[in-house]
Amino acid sequence: MNTHLQDYSHKRLNILTGEWVLVSPHRSKRPWQGQNEEISNEKRPSYDENCYLCATNTRINGEVNPDYKDVFVFTNDFAALQKDSPSFKIDDGLFKAKSETGICKVICFSPDHSKSLADMDVKDIKKVVNVWQQEYISLGKNKDINYVQIFENKGAVMGSSNPHPHGQIWSQSTLPNEVEKKDNQQLKYYNTKNSNLLEDYLKQELEANERIIFQNKDFVVLTPFWAIWPFEVMIAPKKTQENITKMTDEEALNYAEAISVITKAYDKLFNTSFPYSSGIHQSPTNNKENKHWHWHMSFYPPLLRSATVKKFMVGYEMFGSPQRDITAELAAKRLKNLI
Amino acid sequence: MNTHLQDYSHKRLNILTGEWVLVSPHRSKRPWQGQNEEISNEKRPSYDENCYLCATNTRINGEVNPDYKDVFVFTNDFAALQKDSPSFKIDDGLFKAKSETGICKVICFSPDHSKSLADMDVKDIKKVVNVWQQEYISLGKNKDINYVQIFENKGAVMGSSNPHPHGQIWSQSTLPNEVEKKDNQQLKYYNTKNSNLLEDYLKQELEANERIIFQNKDFVVLTPFWAIWPFEVMIAPKKTQENITKMTDEEALNYAEAISVITKAYDKLFNTSFPYSSGIHQSPTNNKENKHWHWHMSFYPPLLRSATVKKFMVGYEMFGSPQRDITAELAAKRLKNLI
Ligand SMILES: O=P(O)(O)O[C@H]1O[C@H](CO)[C@@H](O)[C@H](O)[C@H]1O
Ligand SMILES: O=P(O)(O)O[C@H]1O[C@H](CO)[C@@H](O)[C@H](O)[C@H]1O
Repeated sequence: MNTHLQDYSHKRLNILTGEWVLVSPHRSKRPWQGQNEEISNEKRPSYDENCYLCATNTRINGEVNPDYKDVFVFTNDFAALQKDSPSFKIDDGLFKAKSETGICKVICFSPDHSKSLADMDVKDIKKVVNVWQQEYISLGKNKDINYVQIFENKGAVMGSSNPHPHGQIWSQSTLPNEVEKKDNQQLKYYNTKNSNLLEDYLKQELEANERIIFQNKDFVVLTPFWAIWPFEVMIAPKKTQENITKMTDEEALNYAEAISVITKAYDKLFNTSFPYSSGIHQSPTNNKENKHWHWHMSFYPPLLRSATVKKFMVGYEMFGSPQRDITAELAAKRLKNLI
Repeated sequence: MNTHLQDYSHKRLNILTGEWVLVSPHRSKRPWQGQNEEISNEKRPSYDENCYLCATNTRINGEVNPDYKDVFVFTNDFAALQKDSPSFKIDDGLFKAKSETGICKVICFSPDHSKSLADMDVKDIKKVVNVWQQEYISLGKNKDINYVQIFENKGAVMGSSNPHPHGQIWSQSTLPNEVEKKDNQQLKYYNTKNSNLLEDYLKQELEANERIIFQNKDFVVLTPFWAIWPFEVMIAPKKTQENITKMTDEEALNYAEAISVITKAYDKLFNTSFPYSSGIHQSPTNNKENKHWHWHMSFYPPLLRSATVKKFMVGYEMFGSPQRDITAELAAKRLKNLI
């Protein structure tokens, strides 16, 4: 590999979005006198009577959670998208808006308040994967739902308001910005090369073997060449699948293993319950041909140097481009060493 | 105005980037049990012997700051962009990268460690504006510099590592992502309408008078229709100017007044030194015709409900689209009432 990438400031192209990231490898020696995050490594109890996600507890709207044993899904009590609001469009000169409807759900990964995905057995993570599949199908059947966004905010620093292991699903009528970009880039590639962008990329990555963190028979875990967040990671099936419903049962288990391996490595990295936002990008549920789509899950973790020092995506990053200090290659190597 | 915009979930188009923001007006009643930010309303001294930005102090690299009286600019000791690194390009299948060179500077707004722009006199803010103009010109003259990004990260929550009033300037050889988007959108409009996108938009806003926070003879301060951050604000000249060097002396003073008015209102909002990232988007220094550009300054502040509760741009926002709870109209009204 070109060693310049480890020494000099440069830009790398995210082939999935068409956007660039600025990389400043020489900058990681910068001293830090800014904000430190609070961490609590305090062990949580398996059940907390004040947690609105624990089994048998009452939520703010008065509903009582069932005595669930595995995974539990319910409609978000404070949904960002409304299901039955009126349809409208504003096209008034340079003011442009339209109604957006949708369904938002919360998914508890386990009844055990003390756990995170990193602490769960692979077979229990697989149960979460199976619920994601079911939700993608049932939400997607709704005629007003054309995209299903599955994600998790883990840790207070990532805006999670409850430490109980849980994720969310926001499904809606149009494609969100990030999905639109990836839809365009994958379609362009598919139309010109008659091949799948991400499958071809993964082949090249497996050959280069510089950013691979882990693999099993069906899945690769790697730091993308264009990663933005310090320890960003992508999990993807080696062979193209449009969405997560295309997995066999064995593949779902191997996917669960990949999630388990990377979340455990994360927790070891700075010896803390590692915060991140994760999300799955996959084909829209719009009844169109989506052969150009290759689904993948990404982890965007904010920590940079330790359990208390994160990367701030602020001024330059908001007005210019995302910027990173350590290279994707170094980040992958550090994570790989923890497996 | 369509009252649906205050009641139902919808998307609004950012005409400058071509991207959408999801607005959930009904969601602002959500209870908050998540992370609270630390605030320090403690008064700082006018001089701090440990501050590497105060006059006459020694910086980490051994250089001694002059005994400056107004504004002081120096080259960033830990620059993200290098000036004289080798030029290279990687075009290896789906791995695409290129070298990026540039010059990064730090600009101290005042020798007084205790102040922020909100505490400075308008005539002193004007001195900062004048230095921005000079830097734009002198950096832009460099043959390898095609864009000059001026910005400020204010407050520890925005990654600022030093409370001394200061901003930054990162100048570089290519256009960053956000600038590229705005360049495209403004050019498209200019070519089809033979008119300037932002000037036309400001006219429409002044007429609608729903999101205007303040105006003087030359400048408008408003919450854009498509604002992302809870109390996001834009300052722009009423008549098109490509970049900040086009201002007359009187206009520079009126611009300084606009900065003063909005930063003071911000500090009153939650009774705290209000954190934000601000930045100026303006024409590239690429020696091309940039008649389609209308410069503007934006403020992206994270606080949502109080001095300690911010909006987290996390899971859905990272994987989908930015999302906001209070509408631009309500935010503008609250800020306007503080002037
Ligand atoms: O350069 P500073 O102030 O040390 O650093 C701050 O601003 C930079 C530019 O927005 C960011 O890259 C850093 O993450 C942030 O901490
Ligand atoms: O829905 P929650 O967990 O209360 O809220 C969290 O996730 C949402 C979706 O990413 C964000 O909009 C909120 O800012 C964040 O605090």
